Amino acid sequence: MPTLKLRTTQRSEMVDLTEQVQRKVSEAGISRGQAVVYVPHTTAGVTINECADPDVVHDFLKQLDVMVPWEQPFYRHAEGNSAAHVKASMVGSSVTVLIHNGLLQLGRWQGIWFCEFDGPRRREIYLRTWSENSKKR
Amino acid sequence: MPTLKLRTTQRSEMVDLTEQVQRKVSEAGISRGQAVVYVPHTTAGVTINECADPDVVHDFLKQLDVMVPWEQPFYRHAEGNSAAHVKASMVGSSVTVLIHNGLLQLGRWQGIWFCEFDGPRRREIYLRTWSENSKKR
Amino acid sequence: MPTLKLRTTQRSEMVDLTEQVQRKVSEAGISRGQAVVYVPHTTAGVTINECADPDVVHDFLKQLDVMVPWEQPFYRHAEGNSAAHVKASMVGSSVTVLIHNGLLQLGRWQGIWFCEFDGPRRREIYLRTWSENSKKR
Repeated sequence: MPTLKLRTTQRSEMVDLTEQVQRKVSEAGISRGQAVVYVPHTTAGVTINECADPDVVHDFLKQLDVMVPWEQPFYRHAEGNSAAHVKASMVGSSVTVLIHNGLLQLGRWQGIWFCEFDGPRRREIYLRTWSENSKKR
Repeated sequence: MPTLKLRTTQRSEMVDLTEQVQRKVSEAGISRGQAVVYVPHTTAGVTINECADPDVVHDFLKQLDVMVPWEQPFYRHAEGNSAAHVKASMVGSSVTVLIHNGLLQLGRWQGIWFCEFDGPRRREIYLRTWSENSKKR
Repeated sequence: MPTLKLRTTQRSEMVDLTEQVQRKVSEAGISRGQAVVYVPHTTAGVTINECADPDVVHDFLKQLDVMVPWEQPFYRHAEGNSAAHVKASMVGSSVTVLIHNGLLQLGRWQGIWFCEFDGPRRREIYLRTWSENSKKR
């Protein structure tokens, strides 16, 4: 199964995966189908959001920190990263993107973002593509 | 690729897509499979929630406004819609619904809702249906 | 369509579905493909998060309660469970998990969790598996 690997450098950080995902779709030779990008970690996630202005990522991570504080009197999880687990479930573990004419059907401003919520760490991302054509054989 | 188009009229607003999605599933003649509803925008999303009582949508949008304020001292994105970007990633860019006997397998109270977080705007929604039958040919 | 049934016992509660989903994948004899786990309720959801330490679930549910209070002066929905509807859309109605060599490709610490936000209730979960192999016949 195609796997992307990366190493994050910050506690909270987003990494643009769009080009790597598109490359895998092209390599797989899929004209029409879908791509599933899956994060097998519990303190990280994946989302689709603006890829043009890096300030959007900045504002997103800051606002998540406000909504989900790193410290809460009721947190019990001993590793001290409960906030990262909460954020992971808010953002989600996978995204699905449609493929048409061999291209990810992202909107003009959309990119696929790996979301690190408890870095720095080494991370993996699973990628699976599905061809609609093969179903029609 | 089948595309739904709509024009929103409010800054925050939800539009029930259920009937239109079911119509596309019926037109495609799919008996058993899945539908993916994808929003190619970064300040809008799609979710599944109650379709019977419009007060649920009201309460949802209001509570999102409380959680994600339109103004924050740390927002940098110059367009003034950082909150809409945050909400888009909280809600997500796509939903997957199963199809059985030609019908979307929604729960009794579930509808598919387009979520406008930075309207009014013209918006598009991509729709892709997958037939399980065709795989078995 | 394969359906899991369960009865929740708390107002907010998470139930680990991982074993049951893996069993259905094994019964279906799928070597390579994906599983979609779908919750047809509007005050419940499904997410992927840590399955090793139950404190993570505790902290997650508590933090959701802080973010989305049960009472708000602006809530209109007469059933008194607006918070549960909000949480359902934050967490989402479905998860997709990849299958490889007959096994769900979950990360080491990941489990599939049904999220009850307005229990206790009887609940259903729809499960659909897709085989990549069958497409290649």
